[in-house]
Amino acid sequence: MKIVSAKAEYIRYQSRMVRDGEGHSHPGKPHEAKVGFLTIVCDDGTEGHAVDGNMLVDVLNRVVAPAIIGEDPFMHEHIWQRMRTWQRLHSDFTDRTLCALDLALWDICGKKCGVPVYKLLGGYKDKVPAYGSIMVGDDIKGGLDTPEAYAEFAKKLVAKGYKAIKLHTWMPPIIPNPDPKLDVKACQMVRDAVGPDIALMLDPYHDYTREQALYIADALYELGFLWMEEPMDEHSMSSYVWLNSHTRLPICGPETVEGKNRTRADWIAAGASDIGRAGTEVTGGITSVMKSAHLYESFGMNIELHGNTIGNLHVLGAIPNGEYFERGLLHPLLDYETPKPWFKSIYDPMDENGFVSIPSVPGLGWDFDYDYIKDNIVV
Amino acid sequence: MKIVSAKAEYIRYQSRMVRDGEGHSHPGKPHEAKVGFLTIVCDDGTEGHAVDGNMLVDVLNRVVAPAIIGEDPFMHEHIWQRMRTWQRLHSDFTDRTLCALDLALWDICGKKCGVPVYKLLGGYKDKVPAYGSIMVGDDIKGGLDTPEAYAEFAKKLVAKGYKAIKLHTWMPPIIPNPDPKLDVKACQMVRDAVGPDIALMLDPYHDYTREQALYIADALYELGFLWMEEPMDEHSMSSYVWLNSHTRLPICGPETVEGKNRTRADWIAAGASDIGRAGTEVTGGITSVMKSAHLYESFGMNIELHGNTIGNLHVLGAIPNGEYFERGLLHPLLDYETPKPWFKSIYDPMDENGFVSIPSVPGLGWDFDYDYIKDNIVV
Repeated sequence: MKIVSAKAEYIRYQSRMVRDGEGHSHPGKPHEAKVGFLTIVCDDGTEGHAVDGNMLVDVLNRVVAPAIIGEDPFMHEHIWQRMRTWQRLHSDFTDRTLCALDLALWDICGKKCGVPVYKLLGGYKDKVPAYGSIMVGDDIKGGLDTPEAYAEFAKKLVAKGYKAIKLHTWMPPIIPNPDPKLDVKACQMVRDAVGPDIALMLDPYHDYTREQALYIADALYELGFLWMEEPMDEHSMSSYVWLNSHTRLPICGPETVEGKNRTRADWIAAGASDIGRAGTEVTGGITSVMKSAHLYESFGMNIELHGNTIGNLHVLGAIPNGEYFERGLLHPLLDYETPKPWFKSIYDPMDENGFVSIPSVPGLGWDFDYDYIKDNIVV
Repeated sequence: MKIVSAKAEYIRYQSRMVRDGEGHSHPGKPHEAKVGFLTIVCDDGTEGHAVDGNMLVDVLNRVVAPAIIGEDPFMHEHIWQRMRTWQRLHSDFTDRTLCALDLALWDICGKKCGVPVYKLLGGYKDKVPAYGSIMVGDDIKGGLDTPEAYAEFAKKLVAKGYKAIKLHTWMPPIIPNPDPKLDVKACQMVRDAVGPDIALMLDPYHDYTREQALYIADALYELGFLWMEEPMDEHSMSSYVWLNSHTRLPICGPETVEGKNRTRADWIAAGASDIGRAGTEVTGGITSVMKSAHLYESFGMNIELHGNTIGNLHVLGAIPNGEYFERGLLHPLLDYETPKPWFKSIYDPMDENGFVSIPSVPGLGWDFDYDYIKDNIVV
């Protein structure tokens, strides 16, 4: 079995999301947007895909495609390792672009074997509890503009079946000076609103000082929070070692720092976090996240996966040491349950007990609307 | 797909190997022996096997079989984790017994998917260099009774194509007092015999003192050896930290200490070895060895696999950070190239350049002689 073509394109669609200067998304006026769509085709007709707004289409077509045509998709560890080394001098070959390649290759292998990817990896569970991941704070009336708004929204999420909720609070440019006290206030009001039995987490502004991060951590410990993510620049691992040694609140990370599973090994050795973190559309794909999961498991640690991507569901279905699926981002003015236009159905419907099932069809299990895609593909 | 039966039996055969009091094997008079043979059958007729002299047949039939009947073999991570926890109070549920279960399940998944197991894991390479692993020293004329005998045998191995050779030297009861100077003498004579371009390793007596181990390590460093394994009781990790900090010779381990991938995490964190070690028939099967391989990879370390088992070939085919296949044990008076009576062919033939190909048929790729097995199965 050989790869005969690999092509990355864009799918055009109407978006209701706008990104602010720092890159965070908020509800906004409908406008045309595009999302990356990778298609890898094999000589027997098997096709694999990845779809993601962050893959670099040009890098996939210019650097990756020529390198993988003629290769056996089942030799994907070899492809992944070779592409990893190519990232060094192709400075635009991001981890998120490597993710797209990796996901499409696992999709092919699952389809060819006739099993969902999590069973290729070795199945552990077929459903996973979700947490509702609330979008970054904003200044929209009826949105997420006050601590009270978070509390109201959290109550609605619990009514929908969520047993766990994560807040993202206010960051620039919405709020020029991020405010630890305001973060704690929102967390306090959400705890009061949902009661003691809902698991809560916080992902606040990502560039606090050590002292600000510790202030929030200690306050969240008193509020019975499950963890906090990335309150400081993760390029200072020493700051996380400091924070982790000063607070009893579990710290979850790293998420965005480069280096995939190797960075995570260093964080473990340094004691920089209590709970690991990685994501299949962020840190090198399913391949790297499985390496990280095995690494954390060997050290007796859990890993919590970043983002609501389908690859995360498959990893969670294959490991004992990951608890939650991140469902979101959620916002009072947005509908999460309606599929994006390139899908016929969403892959992560949640049941009334707050669980999401791992996709059970061969491959990754995206339910693409190929007619829509064909009509809206652009280079 | 569900498991409908699991049965472990013995295959009777004529052996030319005898085990000494410490458990090491040597050539001896032909006598009847038996090897464990596990068969797991699924509702669609797919069968998986493991064959190994160290599985505990009784545990597989009494503890494991009832626990897995009705389970989906693709949910093997779940089965593996559950069985791992059962090991605690079933004190006879050894890691080697867990290996047998794990190998049979991977065999089923590969067969069902129509791909060799290393491609299920994500293929990295399709062949691997072997080292000739010379049997433990003895007192047999024409065997391995002197340093000169090792040197002569090593030259023959190089003539056959081996580019790397590992010695196991003299241990009790063959030699009541293991002798570091005699070990070094054998290593020196082998180095002189094969020249500087053949990679050499040593696996000596396993209960030396720290000082004896360091003496050998420093001497082997001068002889340009690639690594030394297990010169002391691995239950004293501190002794390995001490040894590793005192010698420049790479130390490879742990091999026999309990705890699978978790112990290996602790050894890494402590700096107890330079090169990792594990084996698919020793430390919990392919599942655990892949976790260990990912762990070592994340720390920038290699892993060298213990033993000549078929599972090791598949792991080596799926990872970038394992160099050699251990081919043996080899002895001047024994023929390694003739298959055991329960096989029609050996799975690890070596080419003239010293490479062994990863089996390419679906599943693990054992070429069983089912007629022989049927005629010689015993309970």
